[in-house]
Amino acid sequence: VKQINVILFDGFETLDVFGPVEIFGRMNHQYTMDYFSMQGELVTSSQGVQVKTKPISKIQLNEILLIPGGEGTRTLIDNEELIKEITLLAAEAEFVLTICTGAALLAKTGIINGKKATTNKRAFSWVQSVNEKVAWQKQARWVVDDKFYTSSGVSAGMDMSLGFIKDQQGQAAAEGVAEAIEYIWNKQADNDPFCDRAR
Amino acid sequence: VKQINVILFDGFETLDVFGPVEIFGRMNHQYTMDYFSMQGELVTSSQGVQVKTKPISKIQLNEILLIPGGEGTRTLIDNEELIKEITLLAAEAEFVLTICTGAALLAKTGIINGKKATTNKRAFSWVQSVNEKVAWQKQARWVVDDKFYTSSGVSAGMDMSLGFIKDQQGQAAAEGVAEAIEYIWNKQADNDPFCDRAR
Repeated sequence: VKQINVILFDGFETLDVFGPVEIFGRMNHQYTMDYFSMQGELVTSSQGVQVKTKPISKIQLNEILLIPGGEGTRTLIDNEELIKEITLLAAEAEFVLTICTGAALLAKTGIINGKKATTNKRAFSWVQSVNEKVAWQKQARWVVDDKFYTSSGVSAGMDMSLGFIKDQQGQAAAEGVAEAIEYIWNKQADNDPFCDRAR
Repeated sequence: VKQINVILFDGFETLDVFGPVEIFGRMNHQYTMDYFSMQGELVTSSQGVQVKTKPISKIQLNEILLIPGGEGTRTLIDNEELIKEITLLAAEAEFVLTICTGAALLAKTGIINGKKATTNKRAFSWVQSVNEKVAWQKQARWVVDDKFYTSSGVSAGMDMSLGFIKDQQGQAAAEGVAEAIEYIWNKQADNDPFCDRAR
């Protein structure tokens, strides 16, 4: 069983989190998930969903880290305390998965300097400006470089999560989950229909 | 502004709820959402997400009702108190949207007898058995009959939600949301790639 630690904050994007959670949660208990925030408070998404969390200090190292995006990231890139936590956690994690502008938080740590990564197409310039040393990929539904999985905007997190399962448990496992949730999986990491909206 | 009242219960399917919530939450404050359960407790999804809710008695009539599916529905169809609440709420709601096996709860009330509806393809026989008087549609991503929108399994709820927005606010509005969340919308209600898995 692999443990996925999800970092939440006020203004996280709802589907960035719960698309992947649905997918990993369908893997017959091969993945468990927990939700964390700086203080372990009740956290509210951009769409008003209130979710119970544990304090970020309780995250175990060497597990999987999942960082969503959302409006909250715009100010959180300047939150030194959170970035310090993510720097440590991302360095020690077995894998790090980001969705949408969650890549801005990861990029801010410096840990993906020189690595390929992608992010939300409508916030591309902003995320790029957070750290120009990352090899940002414009045409990508998701990107894998080393232990870092980064996805494009919101829904792309589901395609990436299935891609991660494919890499870990094989194509049949990923297709089984997609079928179980009646999801039309965009299987090609470089098939990015929203690439030309980049700004 | 339209208010969407989401019925939650232990064992609700995560994406059944948060796919639609993401979509309606992207409509520039044209929709607001609140989460309700029988007692207004903290509710846990099948994938372990804990969400804060209000008591179901606080729901206003004449608004939009959203009923997700999930493992929880298997026993809840026999919960007379909940079915009584849903019967009243569904009768008085402006629209009722169900996702996946949420259709079983709606069907149990008898309110969609003689109406067309659909549900999860992998639970099709079971939902059908809950109420044979519903005109169950096997080949459908989602179905609209009168004020009732019912969708196929999990991910189909997102396609239906965009279809609802199309019906209410027009095609451009629905496409705008799909693009903003980089979602590849299956626009045809009768385009159901998972139909042949029905059982």
